[in-house]
Amino acid sequence: QWMMLDWKPKRPDVLVDPFGLGRIVQDGLVYTQNFSIRSYEIGADRTASIDTLMNHLQETALNHVKSAGLLDDGFGSTPEMYKKNLIWVVAKMQVLVNRYPAWGDVVQVDSWVSGSGKNGMRRDWLVRDCKTGETLTRASSLWVMMNKKTRKLSKIPEEVREEIEPYFLNSAPAVEEDDRRLPKLDDNTADFIRTGLTPRWSDLDVNQHVNNVKYISWILESAPPQILESHEISALTLEYRRECGKDSVLQSLTAIPGNQDSDLKSCGEVECQHLLRLENGAEIVRGRTEWRPKYSSNCGVAGEVPAESA
Amino acid sequence: QWMMLDWKPKRPDVLVDPFGLGRIVQDGLVYTQNFSIRSYEIGADRTASIDTLMNHLQETALNHVKSAGLLDDGFGSTPEMYKKNLIWVVAKMQVLVNRYPAWGDVVQVDSWVSGSGKNGMRRDWLVRDCKTGETLTRASSLWVMMNKKTRKLSKIPEEVREEIEPYFLNSAPAVEEDDRRLPKLDDNTADFIRTGLTPRWSDLDVNQHVNNVKYISWILESAPPQILESHEISALTLEYRRECGKDSVLQSLTAIPGNQDSDLKSCGEVECQHLLRLENGAEIVRGRTEWRPKYSSNCGVAGEVPAESA
Repeated sequence: QWMMLDWKPKRPDVLVDPFGLGRIVQDGLVYTQNFSIRSYEIGADRTASIDTLMNHLQETALNHVKSAGLLDDGFGSTPEMYKKNLIWVVAKMQVLVNRYPAWGDVVQVDSWVSGSGKNGMRRDWLVRDCKTGETLTRASSLWVMMNKKTRKLSKIPEEVREEIEPYFLNSAPAVEEDDRRLPKLDDNTADFIRTGLTPRWSDLDVNQHVNNVKYISWILESAPPQILESHEISALTLEYRRECGKDSVLQSLTAIPGNQDSDLKSCGEVECQHLLRLENGAEIVRGRTEWRPKYSSNCGVAGEVPAESA
Repeated sequence: QWMMLDWKPKRPDVLVDPFGLGRIVQDGLVYTQNFSIRSYEIGADRTASIDTLMNHLQETALNHVKSAGLLDDGFGSTPEMYKKNLIWVVAKMQVLVNRYPAWGDVVQVDSWVSGSGKNGMRRDWLVRDCKTGETLTRASSLWVMMNKKTRKLSKIPEEVREEIEPYFLNSAPAVEEDDRRLPKLDDNTADFIRTGLTPRWSDLDVNQHVNNVKYISWILESAPPQILESHEISALTLEYRRECGKDSVLQSLTAIPGNQDSDLKSCGEVECQHLLRLENGAEIVRGRTEWRPKYSSNCGVAGEVPAESA
């Protein structure tokens, strides 16, 4: 279903990425980078948070473009894109998490790009435990071009296509596309609503926009604490609809379709639907999360935290 | 004034910390760890944020304790401390920043501990550019013991002192103590107040308390945007007064003593005083920040961001 790279666990003395800065492998088509999980990247349950995971994906993608010499403005645009005021924006992101690494674990992130339709690019990631080779996470994303001045989507100009096509691996996607429609939640269909969310100064990227990864924190702000405490995200789909600037005030909506209360209590899996919107109703992100129990022995016991019970 | 470790820039092929996981040097008394600066650790001006810097200090401190075999509960307590329900809490933190590293830079963080008075411990840090050896940051902190159950401060019991004393380097502090009194700001003395700040789920540490580092983001929430955009923090002092849990609602207060408006416009240095307090007035953190202009050429031009003007 998805591309399998050659995998051999590496001995420290033959380590290829000593500074964790990454390098290009596979005839220049795959970028690989190691990350050791830091204490400040783990959450209340002592494993890497979903934000951390997404940060590692983003960093690997940026370093890939940088290493390929395709960065002109220093943050993701090729020289031709820069000339034409074009930037990449992510339209959709799908992530499947098999296991979250712990503090001190080292993960290897591989990333590559492929064409997607006439005007899109797909970027895939594969995250593995550096010691065992176990696949921890697979992710696929769809990228399109936007004019930086008009903020409108653009076709891929021929000159840009020529720059980027040599870098396409054109493999099958790491995560097969989930094309189930994400519903637009509203005050009536949402089960949980959190209002008044504002970006902190530290949430802004170099363009003073909110970084994609930050949306996940906001989405989880409206997820019920019972799920956050007893379950972990096993799958995540995000559809990005609109940008969010430093003065935006957001609302986070979550719905749990069907009656899954019993699933929470019986340690079952739970599916949530999400919407981030501006106060005027404009959609920022639609999302779907799938959750599995964290600890089969004590799930459903709301508020129990392993750090305190250890 | 402060301890100078032997410094030789290292060639990649003799790198001693290949996974960036750190190791003990100097007869077991100094812990050293490398960090490469990630894209998601930099702010709007493309250099590492102060949060990132503090995260690296925290990670190095935790790994030091862990490597020394002093961790019983897995997060900072020695076996005797664990038996007696004692934990370390930070009482004061002083940081001097000479230069902020950029995306892709690799920094080396050295950390060590010393006794401080009868019932305290001082932890020092030295952060250097891995390539040039240039000192980027110096930091000193004061730690005291708290009973985890009663949340009251405690003397250091003899059994604990015996565990930790062999690890004391007893050097001069990396940053000489700044004992200027930090005033308690209130609605009348503060120039800027931001209310309604709440922890996000992702701000909580393994004990469901707000991580020390997060306080800095909140303090900066009440700093005027003009300073945030044109200046950078050159010095930071924080006095921790009280813990903050997941249901706390905070207020951030900032005062700019004297009339320093002219300093902002004339590219001068600026000093701010800060207070984080609960809505009932209880103090969480008092602070002082000192700021210097980021770009001598265009400081004072509010709103100008290098990413957009590049």
